[in-house]
Amino acid sequence: MPDRNPLVRLLRPRSVAVIGASDDPLRIGGRPIDYMRSQGYQGRLMPVNPNRATIQGLEAYASVADLPETPDVAIVAVAAKLASAVVAELAARGTAAAIVFSAGFAEAGEEGAEIQQGMVASAREYGMRLLGPNSLGVVNPGAGFYGSFTSVVEMGFPLAGRVGIASQSGAYGSHILGIARDAGIGVSACVMSGNESDISLGDIVHAMVDDDNTDVIAVYSEGIRDGERLLRALEAARKARKPVVMMKVGTSAVGSAAAQSHTASLAGNDAVTDAVLAEFGVVRARSTEHMLDVARLATRRIYPANNSLGVITVSGGAGVIISDAAEVVGLPMPEMPPATQQRLKALLPFAAPRNPVDCTAQFLNDMTIAGRFTEAVVAEGGYQSVLGFFTYTGGADSIAPRLREQLKGVRDKHPDRLYVLSVLASPERVREYEADGFSVFEDPTRAVVAIEAMGRFGQAFERAPSLPPPSVPAVELPDSTPSEAEAKRVLARAGIAVAPERAWPLPR
Amino acid sequence: MPDRNPLVRLLRPRSVAVIGASDDPLRIGGRPIDYMRSQGYQGRLMPVNPNRATIQGLEAYASVADLPETPDVAIVAVAAKLASAVVAELAARGTAAAIVFSAGFAEAGEEGAEIQQGMVASAREYGMRLLGPNSLGVVNPGAGFYGSFTSVVEMGFPLAGRVGIASQSGAYGSHILGIARDAGIGVSACVMSGNESDISLGDIVHAMVDDDNTDVIAVYSEGIRDGERLLRALEAARKARKPVVMMKVGTSAVGSAAAQSHTASLAGNDAVTDAVLAEFGVVRARSTEHMLDVARLATRRIYPANNSLGVITVSGGAGVIISDAAEVVGLPMPEMPPATQQRLKALLPFAAPRNPVDCTAQFLNDMTIAGRFTEAVVAEGGYQSVLGFFTYTGGADSIAPRLREQLKGVRDKHPDRLYVLSVLASPERVREYEADGFSVFEDPTRAVVAIEAMGRFGQAFERAPSLPPPSVPAVELPDSTPSEAEAKRVLARAGIAVAPERAWPLPR
Repeated sequence: MPDRNPLVRLLRPRSVAVIGASDDPLRIGGRPIDYMRSQGYQGRLMPVNPNRATIQGLEAYASVADLPETPDVAIVAVAAKLASAVVAELAARGTAAAIVFSAGFAEAGEEGAEIQQGMVASAREYGMRLLGPNSLGVVNPGAGFYGSFTSVVEMGFPLAGRVGIASQSGAYGSHILGIARDAGIGVSACVMSGNESDISLGDIVHAMVDDDNTDVIAVYSEGIRDGERLLRALEAARKARKPVVMMKVGTSAVGSAAAQSHTASLAGNDAVTDAVLAEFGVVRARSTEHMLDVARLATRRIYPANNSLGVITVSGGAGVIISDAAEVVGLPMPEMPPATQQRLKALLPFAAPRNPVDCTAQFLNDMTIAGRFTEAVVAEGGYQSVLGFFTYTGGADSIAPRLREQLKGVRDKHPDRLYVLSVLASPERVREYEADGFSVFEDPTRAVVAIEAMGRFGQAFERAPSLPPPSVPAVELPDSTPSEAEAKRVLARAGIAVAPERAWPLPR
Repeated sequence: MPDRNPLVRLLRPRSVAVIGASDDPLRIGGRPIDYMRSQGYQGRLMPVNPNRATIQGLEAYASVADLPETPDVAIVAVAAKLASAVVAELAARGTAAAIVFSAGFAEAGEEGAEIQQGMVASAREYGMRLLGPNSLGVVNPGAGFYGSFTSVVEMGFPLAGRVGIASQSGAYGSHILGIARDAGIGVSACVMSGNESDISLGDIVHAMVDDDNTDVIAVYSEGIRDGERLLRALEAARKARKPVVMMKVGTSAVGSAAAQSHTASLAGNDAVTDAVLAEFGVVRARSTEHMLDVARLATRRIYPANNSLGVITVSGGAGVIISDAAEVVGLPMPEMPPATQQRLKALLPFAAPRNPVDCTAQFLNDMTIAGRFTEAVVAEGGYQSVLGFFTYTGGADSIAPRLREQLKGVRDKHPDRLYVLSVLASPERVREYEADGFSVFEDPTRAVVAIEAMGRFGQAFERAPSLPPPSVPAVELPDSTPSEAEAKRVLARAGIAVAPERAWPLPR
């Protein structure tokens, strides 16, 4: 909805100019053109290069002034010392937004910071928004829009989908993009913010909230520079029922120092970050894998505020693993109703019908046992989330088609629940289960962790607004590192409770 | 070394009889024969079936008495009511060990428990060892020995290698076997213990300690039944410098109850388990993924007692993630020597040379930067472990071969360090790095967690024996669930400190 938020246009522009366009598809000014041509970008693509009549087969223009129309978005891939003048020209022509690839600005020292300030000022004069400088840009697989020179796509272009990725790091944003592709996660847009001279992480998240093609937002942050805008964006996401999962790094002494030297942003107080994110219903990810697990499951758009887990398993051992994990993350696993337990026990004397419901390998002799037990868990257990552990039996050619039919039957009758499977299966078979409405995780522990997060989203979506808009500035995340006590006072005034510091959840 | 430990023969028998052999390769008595034939088992394979002259093309024998030679190992795949007699015959003939697939014993109730006791007694009379009953058996991919009917192999047979897997659950053991195969982890043997009427988890671990083909032991346990034997095996592993990584489930209230109903073993006190395992240098895994990460890295056989981490990265963001994770798990990341920092800074002004050492994307223009920076980290930083984050640049065809050459040069000069890479690359390219001596993890956080574990193994291997053998029985893990205080007293008497209960390390 471009009317509501003009930045949405940055995610899917109708026309793009590339300033500093190169005929060489491997150069920074050549890659975006090469990518967009190969990925079928449908908008108008206008290379600007004073020395050539054509660029990669497209008509080239000598300057910004020579462009036949004002582009929605311009990519600036010229040397730092030329970038300011180009940005001023683009802004004066009425370009909506510029993506500045060029490095050598604030990240390079004081002189660069001054040049950067001037560049932003000339953009603002005409209301043009600016992503970067020192940005790896924007990728939108569905639109074939590659306002980016990231080389991660050399190993395969990302898949189109409904997860937005907002990253402060270009290299790590691309790393996430690559892992998402390998995991079969479709992306609506990936935006890498660079120096954030104008467009900040908060702006990007807000654009994704307002983007009809994004359902879930994954954020990678090294330091919040725009507390106010980020909090507004998070509140908007909550109201729009769009879950946000965020990896905020720099929690350790060494990590904070490294983050500082890397992006010149301050890492802030980690406990405060935790508390603020929890208040807005943001799930904080502790690793890339965790972030993408949560994002992937969230695309089902089932967020049970009263989450509970019913488990159907063919292995008692897996049932124990799942119960352990559920207890640790605080996901309730109430017992099955006694009458149902009795009925299942009568059906299959060796079964453990409590929850986890263990139907044992018996289902291999009678596949309807899998269906009847799963139906009992869903219909009579009343669980909001259902996890089925079928391991390699869910992947074996001799079993999987019949199992799939049984499971699909249950889901079709109760489509409002969250369905997750832990199976070992080929990518093709996994895609079949996913198409049936079952999200697949190989590791049952990872499945439980992701399922629990859906409940926290649901709770956040049901809460009344936590902060009246005018008070938001008062809880701006620290632009400088405050003492913890100081930060807690600020938060307390805004009515935000600070959670006790939690142990970092890595295995040791 | 069969002389030292006769159970090693169970892992790679020279001859195998299958009692209850089936011509149908999908039946329980048919699968082992089908698997061994397709996987090239080199020993003598002797089907026993009174009704057929041949089984799957092999000469069949009418009874145990008719076998042309005494088998090393016999597989018993007959109904429970016939199993006892078969076991008695096998034992009398001098068979070294029997694997009993049959179910319907102790796990099925009191009557079954009595039959089981009788069966064990007749085996012991002649000194035959017994795996099971209710066991999914033994798999040895390198020997082509499949004393198992696990159907996980339908999706691909496991790879031969040097990780032993000991599991109390057949279904979950097979699940681990499947995940190991998908992760490219080679297995020396996988043994699934079933009812443990005779051969216990501790016996299996001990056999793997004594097996020359096993370097690393991964254990999945739902409840310790043989505290004494397990502790002896763990101490033997420590002395033999064979790392043990163990997943002991059933820590939660629901989980313990589920474990109990599943295997009739008692889950014991979890804090005690933690303390005992730590004392023996066992790394406790919190998920299947964690267990296999640790096992895979441990096959490098580099266990630095004074572990420290040097990081070379092309992304500042990844450097922060790695630093955060290292701090959480307690892996030191000392700074690089000041003189080296100055030299690197002179070489590349934008570099961050402290540690993490960020050589930025500059290495793309001059690949020797990657080599020289990595060499500086290894040679001058003096770190025992080195983690290189090269993300998709380590996988791209245009970069990877040259990067590989640079990294290989450093490793060849300093082969005593532990080398890990975080790259996004095709399986083929990953295999190249692995062949060069670099272990590859896609997720840098998982890499750090696994690296830290190698140091704990190293420390345990350097410690003097913690328990004089005669006192071992005194700290037997509880066969019944004691109160925590009671358990702590037992441990204190044996000089074992109980660690404060740790938060379960799952992300929430």
